[in-house]
Amino acid sequence: MIVLFTDFGLAGPYTGQVKAVLQRKAPGVAIIDLFADAPTANPKAAAYLLGAYSGWFETGTTFLCVVDPGVGGARAPVIVEADGRFFVGPGNGLFEIVCRRARHARVFEITWRPPALSATFHGRDLFAPVAARLARGEPPPAEARDASWLRQPEWPDDLAEIVYIDHYGNAMTGLRAAALGDNACLSIAGRPLERARFFAARPPGDAFWYENSNGLAEIAVNQGRADRVLALAIGTPVSIVSRREDG
Amino acid sequence: MIVLFTDFGLAGPYTGQVKAVLQRKAPGVAIIDLFADAPTANPKAAAYLLGAYSGWFETGTTFLCVVDPGVGGARAPVIVEADGRFFVGPGNGLFEIVCRRARHARVFEITWRPPALSATFHGRDLFAPVAARLARGEPPPAEARDASWLRQPEWPDDLAEIVYIDHYGNAMTGLRAAALGDNACLSIAGRPLERARFFAARPPGDAFWYENSNGLAEIAVNQGRADRVLALAIGTPVSIVSRREDG
Amino acid sequence: MIVLFTDFGLAGPYTGQVKAVLQRKAPGVAIIDLFADAPTANPKAAAYLLGAYSGWFETGTTFLCVVDPGVGGARAPVIVEADGRFFVGPGNGLFEIVCRRARHARVFEITWRPPALSATFHGRDLFAPVAARLARGEPPPAEARDASWLRQPEWPDDLAEIVYIDHYGNAMTGLRAAALGDNACLSIAGRPLERARFFAARPPGDAFWYENSNGLAEIAVNQGRADRVLALAIGTPVSIVSRREDG
Repeated sequence: MIVLFTDFGLAGPYTGQVKAVLQRKAPGVAIIDLFADAPTANPKAAAYLLGAYSGWFETGTTFLCVVDPGVGGARAPVIVEADGRFFVGPGNGLFEIVCRRARHARVFEITWRPPALSATFHGRDLFAPVAARLARGEPPPAEARDASWLRQPEWPDDLAEIVYIDHYGNAMTGLRAAALGDNACLSIAGRPLERARFFAARPPGDAFWYENSNGLAEIAVNQGRADRVLALAIGTPVSIVSRREDG
Repeated sequence: MIVLFTDFGLAGPYTGQVKAVLQRKAPGVAIIDLFADAPTANPKAAAYLLGAYSGWFETGTTFLCVVDPGVGGARAPVIVEADGRFFVGPGNGLFEIVCRRARHARVFEITWRPPALSATFHGRDLFAPVAARLARGEPPPAEARDASWLRQPEWPDDLAEIVYIDHYGNAMTGLRAAALGDNACLSIAGRPLERARFFAARPPGDAFWYENSNGLAEIAVNQGRADRVLALAIGTPVSIVSRREDG
Repeated sequence: MIVLFTDFGLAGPYTGQVKAVLQRKAPGVAIIDLFADAPTANPKAAAYLLGAYSGWFETGTTFLCVVDPGVGGARAPVIVEADGRFFVGPGNGLFEIVCRRARHARVFEITWRPPALSATFHGRDLFAPVAARLARGEPPPAEARDASWLRQPEWPDDLAEIVYIDHYGNAMTGLRAAALGDNACLSIAGRPLERARFFAARPPGDAFWYENSNGLAEIAVNQGRADRVLALAIGTPVSIVSRREDG
């Protein structure tokens, strides 16, 4: 299975051309759109989202990931193998959290180049053919690099910011709920948010946070849009009012 | 074939994770996105949309349907078998119109539970594995219930409201065109709308209604956006000025 | 492979129903969403977009194309075979640029009609079954027409207008970069735009144009949205300040 994690959007030409390459070069391999609206040009926020969502997929999955403000710039094209899953994309920090949380990770610089490489669409021309090869079980067309290569040691283990706002207006943070306590409060612009188990546990209109289905602390309003009620956007900082005392 | 009818959106993580489950548990079964923008958290409007669109698909199709304001709340997970099609989703009225219009319908409560069930993503954890089983031809992992279970007898046969606004700004009502007359007028906020057969039959800028390709009365403006011209939204009431006299 | 090029949107019912038909009538043939947000009801702008993007796909690809303001009106349903690729859709100019740039093109009027043809959804009822037949290798269910049939000789070879705005706010023109010079400037509302090779070659916030990955001149702002910075929309005219002197 090849999983797409990009900021390309689905409707325009980018995701379709990437899928055409994958289809041609790895026929019969299922392609899943995980995110086509990852935080635009924001590999740091995207890294925490990818870290939370990639672990749900089975070992052997190949992830094709593109969130890349520096397209055409100097970042290297990379492959990360982390606990049996492959990640292909730009070496700009996007795989930092995947690497950090993995028990075993290896990193490679993609040295293969396609016959025709556009200046601005490496997702289609470079990353997709490489992802197709990995999904077919071929070895990485790449050179191993030291584990510390391209790492971002100064990034925190959990990011106290909004990293994604979904279709319903719910706002995911880069914080793992398990790293917070059952009684932890979050706070946005001075407004405290208590933890709930699910939406219907709160009165309509109430803002709260809960552990979402992939383990992130997510801010929501029962029968409302948290993004509008609390004026949230990607990058809005979140405060942790009380940390776990029970662990 | 498995058909998805949800309010999840396509670009975010929800539809992709559901498809990953279906792909894994029913490999080779085609998955079709019918609506990923069904009326958000509005199972009543969604029920009329589903009733109009599901009948176009062949017997044997499995529908995975999620429009669910009470996620995590007390509604039961259900399977409906209606005239040879299966429907899997929340027992909140979403299948009311499908049941009512079917010649033969059976209803089941899903009693099977997955090893891991998140509090808020039953579409992925519960409904998708059940839909995959049905699509593979296995029996419902569920207990039969009385036909009257979870029914909404007070809902009308046709809903005189806007139930969907499409990409072009056309507004579908919950009214079947066949239940209206050829000469029926609709009215929105006092503005009368005559029937036309198709767009080009009216001058540019003109508002009208027509029978859409799935049998619903739909309000449109030739070469314009009806939603903006007439200030329409999901839930806007529609009046029937003259009913059929010819039937 | 069947490639979809429409203004249907992906989330609503149109693309899904078209795919259900293709799936049923050409099982096993891959379906790729190229554009579901082609210029709405604007076959002229769409023709330049299709001309630029279709050539990237392999010989033997079938394109199902619907951008059709006159649905239900008098335009003929057509098939174009151009350099080994098939195009199915409305005869409203949408295939003008594909025909013009092809070394060998043949045009057919679709004479086959399905048992049930809705007044407003020919994409599902007429074009999709025809595309499925062509993708299976069957002959066009259509009659050959003269090469001049339905042509638009007054349209230019390159269109000096915005024809598409992507997910990032980048604006594609209908101009091929190869038809401009390396030193050509474009101009929008009097504001000159120089050519760059890629985004990172310009300071953040700077507007420029570059040759996109399918050969079109595209207007962008490094780390910004060109559509907002320059107030661009589909149809906004572009001036060519200096043409190539080197060719």
